[in-house]
Amino acid sequence: MKLGSLKQGGRDGTLIVVDRALKRAVRASNVAPTLQKALDDWATTAPKLRALAEALADDKAPGSFALDTGALAAPLPRAFQWADGSAYVVHVELVRKARGVEMPPSFWTDPLMYQGGSDSFIGPNDEIEAGDEAWGIDFEGEIGVIVDDVPMGIAPEAARRHIKLVTILNDVSLRNLIVGELAKGFGFFHGKPATAFAPVALTPDELGDAWDGARLNLPLISTLNGKEFGHPNAATDLTFDFGQLIAHAARTRHLEAGTVVGSGTVANRDASVGCSCIAERRVRETIDSGKAVTPFMRFGDRIRIEMVDRAGQSIFGAIEQKVVRYTPPG
Amino acid sequence: MKLGSLKQGGRDGTLIVVDRALKRAVRASNVAPTLQKALDDWATTAPKLRALAEALADDKAPGSFALDTGALAAPLPRAFQWADGSAYVVHVELVRKARGVEMPPSFWTDPLMYQGGSDSFIGPNDEIEAGDEAWGIDFEGEIGVIVDDVPMGIAPEAARRHIKLVTILNDVSLRNLIVGELAKGFGFFHGKPATAFAPVALTPDELGDAWDGARLNLPLISTLNGKEFGHPNAATDLTFDFGQLIAHAARTRHLEAGTVVGSGTVANRDASVGCSCIAERRVRETIDSGKAVTPFMRFGDRIRIEMVDRAGQSIFGAIEQKVVRYTPPG
Repeated sequence: MKLGSLKQGGRDGTLIVVDRALKRAVRASNVAPTLQKALDDWATTAPKLRALAEALADDKAPGSFALDTGALAAPLPRAFQWADGSAYVVHVELVRKARGVEMPPSFWTDPLMYQGGSDSFIGPNDEIEAGDEAWGIDFEGEIGVIVDDVPMGIAPEAARRHIKLVTILNDVSLRNLIVGELAKGFGFFHGKPATAFAPVALTPDELGDAWDGARLNLPLISTLNGKEFGHPNAATDLTFDFGQLIAHAARTRHLEAGTVVGSGTVANRDASVGCSCIAERRVRETIDSGKAVTPFMRFGDRIRIEMVDRAGQSIFGAIEQKVVRYTPPG
Repeated sequence: MKLGSLKQGGRDGTLIVVDRALKRAVRASNVAPTLQKALDDWATTAPKLRALAEALADDKAPGSFALDTGALAAPLPRAFQWADGSAYVVHVELVRKARGVEMPPSFWTDPLMYQGGSDSFIGPNDEIEAGDEAWGIDFEGEIGVIVDDVPMGIAPEAARRHIKLVTILNDVSLRNLIVGELAKGFGFFHGKPATAFAPVALTPDELGDAWDGARLNLPLISTLNGKEFGHPNAATDLTFDFGQLIAHAARTRHLEAGTVVGSGTVANRDASVGCSCIAERRVRETIDSGKAVTPFMRFGDRIRIEMVDRAGQSIFGAIEQKVVRYTPPG
């Protein structure tokens, strides 16, 4: 089943069940008012949501309506935890290579992960607000999973069973703020503004054999200002699968239901498939020709991130966002 | 008024109003079921909660009961954001000095802040679970504020007006994991397990002239295994006040109501007042005698963190926690 949240009914939105074709939807308020509430008690709510999804598929769900993705918030408009990995180590290696520094070999065995802000995730068509183009505005196409309660110290294999939903996301990054910020030693903060999500998150069974329990074997397509920017496969060159990423996140803490775990920018070693962020293309340009040519995003630029199944059908719906100038109050 | 949350009624607890003496309480369910719900609509709920606090003070609140801090969760059992500063730069300077490295001068003007995990805050008497004493278990006594909605790009002076509640907290740290983690460059994750909070968070007016709008001018008292460990004043040597910390957190993002902003370990230059964490004492020992003597916490160790007013009355109630061994599943 596919789940989304209408921008209605409060800060956490209103939970809806969406059909496979992303054409029609129905409010799930009689099961759970919000996706977080559904995740809080997933064993009870999931079968009821599934029954609603089946009724919707059979055109037997009273109150169903045509889906308008512009009316959607992120599936979880706010979450209690956002733990983002950097699981395509080939990407990290490229960045280091462009800087002329060696990558520690431990990066192949010990995942990189940062704690992200999750208080205000944004919807698939929400604008990317930035105060200044000089911040170095970039998109990052990623895969994300949403888990139920995960006990501290869980093993990677057991962690897979806690994956309840899968989605795609745009981990907006401010590249020119990140450089100075990481140098301070406390990780990302200013460099990672609000993250945007696809219209829906879905249960892994919707992915068929493209999902092996911990990896999504399909290309993630990024399109910048109407031109394809990249379509790397999300299972290729994935150094750490989602079982490993969840286990890493849970090493010294329990993860509460509704925690979102991200893959980091989807990246393949094969340059011909392109990139899921501008920074990586700039790194490849630097390695190839000595200098980065592609600029970061400017006000008015548009990014589309999507994944389609083997029949060409959009799986999660598209993230389609425009960058706009933000003027602070006062 | 003073607010807390009973471990009842679900993951977000049940909101209660607590009297000034921390002796009696009353459920606030008719105003808001949880503290997060109250913060989501503070302009409406705050006056009603205040009326309830006045009724409780006058012994006219039906259903009031004797407060048992053992029954309390953190005031926000889970929050959507936890942004922790390191605002006592004297502490950072000491740590660097012990390592023999210079601190960048920018640290005096540009706050250090990390994104913390907020999905499972723990209550004042909850145990500190750790898998291994070798992780280097430490406490960190801090001041925290809880804000309402803060617009991106706000100025420090204007940010002060968004402080709705003040509390104290124990930002538990795993020192021996932090070293390797920070070297990876993505900031804290494993090194910062669940944070514990005092029994109550309170509106700033409860602090009288000890609160100047952005700083809490009282000592924070830490007691390790029954012996006072330190009582540094939270307004002394505070390089960045809460207006500045909130503005820093909001530089590239809006902060959603219920965001918790922390001061970092309370620390004074004056060594005679002691420390709010073991790491700082070890650093001072290293500077004084060439080696750290005080060990990190062991299973069974107890930490108490509290702040008392000028009449000796506990303000937030005490954080009192024991370190216990955690055994992972399977």
